[in-house]
Amino acid sequence: MKRLLSATFVTLLGAAVCVPAMAQFAKPEDAIKYRQSAFSVMGTHFGRLGAMANGKVPFDAKAAADNAAIVEAMSKLPHAAFIDGSDKGGNTKALPLIWTEKTKFIASGDKLMAEATKLAAVTKAPGLTLDQLKAAFGNTAGTCKACHDAYKEK
Amino acid sequence: MKRLLSATFVTLLGAAVCVPAMAQFAKPEDAIKYRQSAFSVMGTHFGRLGAMANGKVPFDAKAAADNAAIVEAMSKLPHAAFIDGSDKGGNTKALPLIWTEKTKFIASGDKLMAEATKLAAVTKAPGLTLDQLKAAFGNTAGTCKACHDAYKEK
Repeated sequence: MKRLLSATFVTLLGAAVCVPAMAQFAKPEDAIKYRQSAFSVMGTHFGRLGAMANGKVPFDAKAAADNAAIVEAMSKLPHAAFIDGSDKGGNTKALPLIWTEKTKFIASGDKLMAEATKLAAVTKAPGLTLDQLKAAFGNTAGTCKACHDAYKEK
Repeated sequence: MKRLLSATFVTLLGAAVCVPAMAQFAKPEDAIKYRQSAFSVMGTHFGRLGAMANGKVPFDAKAAADNAAIVEAMSKLPHAAFIDGSDKGGNTKALPLIWTEKTKFIASGDKLMAEATKLAAVTKAPGLTLDQLKAAFGNTAGTCKACHDAYKEK
């Protein structure tokens, strides 16, 4: 009886854990659209930081902090959308390797989030300098590149 | 001389105000993609709140707060992307009325932001009830609908 209850509990726990994940996206296409949208918004604001870091637009600490805050917020979203089955459907460039080495891929996403969080903290601190922005931008850009090189179709 | 300086100042001020706006998006298509991406992410999380408000998924205060925080963050983004010239290009459903009654359109976006901010505040307050979620969700949904009815192609 105890074993039966345990088994039931495990099944229920499994259901409780799985249901929200399954319920997040009705179809793989929805997950693909969601993560592409999040990356697109992130890329827009990250691009503006890059233009500033590279001297293409004037340095503006307030704009840097505003853009970095959005990059940080967006960096937390896409990972939940790399659900099983979403390696196909839509026009995804996500490589199958994402699902075959999921732990490494997740670690890669964690690095992005960590660097984006640092970038947001650095840019909102009083007295931000262009050099500080460049360094934090470069570190974050490195995590984008590493992940794209490994997991995104060219 | 004073008049000349003033004129120069006004021109410079105009440039200072316009340059960032112009620099935000290189092409109308970029602005369209950006706002559609932001709306898409917002819609995903707003849809999850709706499913909860309508009893399709179990009430979960933490999930409600998490989703509402993202809705609030995203609600602040699209308005900057309704730039002049972006009534065409891409596959936008934005109606020309947006640009002919810009003040009303902006007020409409302000309402969304205000309700999304309230929704986020309500859902993160301790002891959130389903009725509170329903009310705040309904108020926010009303601002979506009003704006879509007026400014989005059917």
